[in-house]
Amino acid sequence: MNTASLNALPRGFRFAATNCGLRKAPNLDLGLIVSDEEVTAAGVFTQNLAQAAPVVLCRQHLRNAASRIRAIIVNSRNANCATGEAGVAAAETTSQALAREIGCDAEQIFVCSTGVIGLPLPVERILNAVPALVKAADRTVEGFSGFTRAIMTTDTRPKWAASRCTLSGRTIRLLGCAKGAGMIHPNMATMLAYIVSDAAIAPRLLQRALNLTVRGTFNSITVDGDTSTNDTLLALASGAAANRTITRPDADYRRFLTALENVCRSLALQIVADGEGATRVIEIEVCGAASDDAARQVASTIAGSSLVKTMFAGADPNWGRILAAAGRSGVKIDPRRANIYLGGILTCRGGVEHAFSEREVHRRMLRDFVPVRVELGPGRGRACMWTCDFTADYVHINASYRT
Amino acid sequence: MNTASLNALPRGFRFAATNCGLRKAPNLDLGLIVSDEEVTAAGVFTQNLAQAAPVVLCRQHLRNAASRIRAIIVNSRNANCATGEAGVAAAETTSQALAREIGCDAEQIFVCSTGVIGLPLPVERILNAVPALVKAADRTVEGFSGFTRAIMTTDTRPKWAASRCTLSGRTIRLLGCAKGAGMIHPNMATMLAYIVSDAAIAPRLLQRALNLTVRGTFNSITVDGDTSTNDTLLALASGAAANRTITRPDADYRRFLTALENVCRSLALQIVADGEGATRVIEIEVCGAASDDAARQVASTIAGSSLVKTMFAGADPNWGRILAAAGRSGVKIDPRRANIYLGGILTCRGGVEHAFSEREVHRRMLRDFVPVRVELGPGRGRACMWTCDFTADYVHINASYRT
Repeated sequence: MNTASLNALPRGFRFAATNCGLRKAPNLDLGLIVSDEEVTAAGVFTQNLAQAAPVVLCRQHLRNAASRIRAIIVNSRNANCATGEAGVAAAETTSQALAREIGCDAEQIFVCSTGVIGLPLPVERILNAVPALVKAADRTVEGFSGFTRAIMTTDTRPKWAASRCTLSGRTIRLLGCAKGAGMIHPNMATMLAYIVSDAAIAPRLLQRALNLTVRGTFNSITVDGDTSTNDTLLALASGAAANRTITRPDADYRRFLTALENVCRSLALQIVADGEGATRVIEIEVCGAASDDAARQVASTIAGSSLVKTMFAGADPNWGRILAAAGRSGVKIDPRRANIYLGGILTCRGGVEHAFSEREVHRRMLRDFVPVRVELGPGRGRACMWTCDFTADYVHINASYRT
Repeated sequence: MNTASLNALPRGFRFAATNCGLRKAPNLDLGLIVSDEEVTAAGVFTQNLAQAAPVVLCRQHLRNAASRIRAIIVNSRNANCATGEAGVAAAETTSQALAREIGCDAEQIFVCSTGVIGLPLPVERILNAVPALVKAADRTVEGFSGFTRAIMTTDTRPKWAASRCTLSGRTIRLLGCAKGAGMIHPNMATMLAYIVSDAAIAPRLLQRALNLTVRGTFNSITVDGDTSTNDTLLALASGAAANRTITRPDADYRRFLTALENVCRSLALQIVADGEGATRVIEIEVCGAASDDAARQVASTIAGSSLVKTMFAGADPNWGRILAAAGRSGVKIDPRRANIYLGGILTCRGGVEHAFSEREVHRRMLRDFVPVRVELGPGRGRACMWTCDFTADYVHINASYRT
């Protein structure tokens, strides 16, 4: 992200990051997004019933203060999950301390954590760092860049994306960042994603746009099939662009939605590309199903199959594994109608092998991005999922003993 | 299997194996079980909609001739799946040739295949080998032992189990063998299992016993979550022990059922232990759920989690991964009531960490067999699943390029 990107920063937000002692200095482990005024918020959270204390707190604050949020604070290295009453207290204390520092109510604060599960969070380290963190927050590329790195766990690189659109003559900026669905050593981590925009939009419409966007982006990727306890996606809209406030699903809403989708899709693909041990992204497109839901179920089964994912690690054109995954997906398919394209080349037609150059398909499967297309029949149902290959490095990253 | 095991061979069956040219000689690739008389049969087959030609044939023959089966022929190296009309013809021709040789109808024959998917089966090699194979069949340990090796693919060792019971004063023998749920190079393979017994039992009761047994044995194991296109379990009962024929679910039936369960459980555990790349078996016991089905769903999600399976590769006591898998299982659990034992040691109590010796738990997790117990609450639902650890070797075995 070079300095030219300052243009990408939505008005109304400041950013900061620091080392508060959860990780070894000088590694960043605490990030802050703070708004100058009260802003509109929307959120989507993990469906896992074993949810971390900060997720419970975020849900509650979103319910109570969706139109007057002031800040998001995120720590890495410790997930504050399965930490009982002490964990709940730690998240609450953090929100109270930050609220005091910037002059607002605790429920105007979102608190997120990612990292080791089941270990007490040494919250005093976070509390000690809050005053300086708030003072340091500014509207600079460095501030944002620091935030993107402070939330990383096993991610090998920071992930961010920007987009814009024009609404009632005003330029609207959207800027997002995320950390990946990999697993921190030694424990599970999380997908965290944050989108800030200077659009003026009603809370209900922002939530609606976010819900709609998630299905085709963050909910269409898989790294290893494990849903984290801490998954959190938050969107904030400051209204500083002074567009006519979006209050219904009109043309402005649809423009904003498209810009939001662009940011989220880019972040989702960056997460897959940086999946633990991953060397390439595989797009699983399923069409010709009886419904979109059926297509999605087939695509999801293929994208999650260990056999399919290991085959991409070796760039091995075993279309039979894809057919077999479709066959066990729970969707009534007729394998004798299935066509399968690997890297754009037809390898299976009507459920049997179609002559193809193994060498050429292998070559295409070695690329960073490999499209797979599965045609099931004459239906109109269609879905797309993104997954990554499954390499020995995934195992090495996740098998290591804690001490 | 030493010569003393001749006592384990049920009366009424002969066995043979040969190399017919599907694999490099002298590797066995074709096995035969043949009965002297017509015998009772039962079967359970893959639920995958992409099912191989021989599976379709076996289902049909079982429907038509469950009380008068004569033989099972199995080839390895080629799954005869996704092979279209030619594949159907190959399976039919095989059953016809074998029927001619032993003097029966084609529908009295079961044909099974395992190995590479999507490649034409060179069926003439099998046909050429049939006459000598039938001639060679005998009731010896060597014959049975050859059969157990002829059906192997990526299995590192043959798998067999024996059991007996007494019914109306007669000794009943059960003998079973299986090949594993691993993946053949370069394509998916299969679980195949065969049980022969000299019990006299009606077809309906044999099928009932098999269905009941499968749930707690072969359907309670997972290696990588991929259901093969060829999975087949067949049971034959010759009646040569001359017990009073089992025709209803009485005490004799229950004794037979127990003996059958013992054989199947042993085979199922051998399959997990020989899972590709596996170094240990993990037993996932879930109790305190609202129902057995709920417990099973939780156990199944834990047993299939890549995160849980890689953690066992490193013998890392990350109980949080188990709690998180339970939380995303779709079953309404309360994580705050969960207790988790690893290797018999309590590591999580009421959803939070319970002080334990990491060193001692690590030491126990290094064993060949690691029991995991998850207590969810006061419910009476209980289930048990077996899985294996997920090592880098699994990826190496399954990622290799075909040529």
